[in-house]
Amino acid sequence: MRDFSQDHSALALNTATLGHNLDGYGAGWSPERVIDACAARGYGGITFWRREIGGQAVQIGQAVRAAGLRVTGLCRTPLLVGPGAPDDVTGDFRASIEMAAGLGADSLTIVVGGVQEGTKGLGESLKIVRDTVARMADEAQSAGVMLGIEPLHPVYAGDRSCLVSVRDAVDMIEEIDHAAVGLDVDVYHVWWDRSLVDQLARLRADQIAGYHICDWLAETRDVLLDRGMMGDGVADLTAIRGAVEATGWRGFCEVEIFSKHWWSRPPEEVLDLCAARFRELC
Amino acid sequence: MRDFSQDHSALALNTATLGHNLDGYGAGWSPERVIDACAARGYGGITFWRREIGGQAVQIGQAVRAAGLRVTGLCRTPLLVGPGAPDDVTGDFRASIEMAAGLGADSLTIVVGGVQEGTKGLGESLKIVRDTVARMADEAQSAGVMLGIEPLHPVYAGDRSCLVSVRDAVDMIEEIDHAAVGLDVDVYHVWWDRSLVDQLARLRADQIAGYHICDWLAETRDVLLDRGMMGDGVADLTAIRGAVEATGWRGFCEVEIFSKHWWSRPPEEVLDLCAARFRELC
Repeated sequence: MRDFSQDHSALALNTATLGHNLDGYGAGWSPERVIDACAARGYGGITFWRREIGGQAVQIGQAVRAAGLRVTGLCRTPLLVGPGAPDDVTGDFRASIEMAAGLGADSLTIVVGGVQEGTKGLGESLKIVRDTVARMADEAQSAGVMLGIEPLHPVYAGDRSCLVSVRDAVDMIEEIDHAAVGLDVDVYHVWWDRSLVDQLARLRADQIAGYHICDWLAETRDVLLDRGMMGDGVADLTAIRGAVEATGWRGFCEVEIFSKHWWSRPPEEVLDLCAARFRELC
Repeated sequence: MRDFSQDHSALALNTATLGHNLDGYGAGWSPERVIDACAARGYGGITFWRREIGGQAVQIGQAVRAAGLRVTGLCRTPLLVGPGAPDDVTGDFRASIEMAAGLGADSLTIVVGGVQEGTKGLGESLKIVRDTVARMADEAQSAGVMLGIEPLHPVYAGDRSCLVSVRDAVDMIEEIDHAAVGLDVDVYHVWWDRSLVDQLARLRADQIAGYHICDWLAETRDVLLDRGMMGDGVADLTAIRGAVEATGWRGFCEVEIFSKHWWSRPPEEVLDLCAARFRELC
């Protein structure tokens, strides 16, 4: 495993950590200010959300690279299935690929959506997801964007993600079998899964599209907005990264903390603490 | 699979469904009134919680049997590990076995507890659980009580149950390898698990200690108290019971719905609806 104790250039910021869905960032920051703050602190990359980019994808991508960072990712495609999926999944999926390409983002995260109305269990919904991702994979590849299928925590299975285990995600990746389709591993969603090592061993390094860090607070008060800072919870961060790196993967570790608590803190403090905890614990 | 459409004598009530942890039941009912209401409606069994029993285990057990029902279970042992475990786990575990024996309950549910303080991940905590259950199994067997290890939904992994997958539970049952130790399968906790069929196939019928039914609402508002009535959610109840019955098991199906909504309804209405939905959908 890599040693980050003296170097956090492998750390990327997911802008959700600064409260991307408040009015502006937590303190009204622009993307440009986030880029400057990350560059000043030695971060290696930034992952944005579509709502922050608007028509400025090319400019923002250039600004990131001019600051010496990478655009590690873009969140996200539309939900592909279930009550939250838009009428025109294909059109919105294509728009997200185009934005990711404009940014020069390494990957585009897919949150797949919940249970298709009129069905029970996860099976039918997963088939719809698989077929949709397979249909869009060539376009992503042509755009130079890796699609990252992200299994969410099983608490979201009803309405946000019928894909809730690494096993199901790896099954899907094998079924689609496309160079532009890989896996996003997020500590929050998978920390409880004792089959993680075995399931990740089924993948090559180039099938890991992203690795997201935070922590699971032992007493989680809100499953959406109470993620923990690394070290404040019960996830075994070393073991999880070890399982991901056992594939040979050596990519960015992207900190993504949805938290009312951290969103109420000054962004500078959050960025500093993320970097310190990353060096110490991740 | 059994056909319940004309006969719900395999239906048992878990008293939590009537709001056991409000003041009295939802409408202040005594255990005796619950027994009468279940008998009048053709239920086959009742599972109680310790707080309802006090020093009346033998009398309540006799009353259940006099009404033509079984005491299908007792909830529950203390948490065995983590911050919620009592100082004297062994003593309280023994007290729960004795109460189950006094009731003449078929099984005693184990909710194992969360992550042991000072550890990360689930592994160390699971070892403590395994060793504790193994140590108490002979006493349970002598008392005629089956211990039901219940994996909870992964959302509870931090503070309530380091055991969150059927795979881990079956692993533990195999490691303990004792005739008095089996599995509780609860729809709420396992409905999302696509490995259910494969994992349950590792068990014999006499290793199924309990089967609990409810539903997972697509938009679950509260992970503790917003369980759904059968048919109102997205769990594939037929497939799940099919997986349990594939072991050869033919026991009671115990309805257990923790729900602020249903607790606010008259108990008679809830009991009638559970029976109707069971015949129609389960």
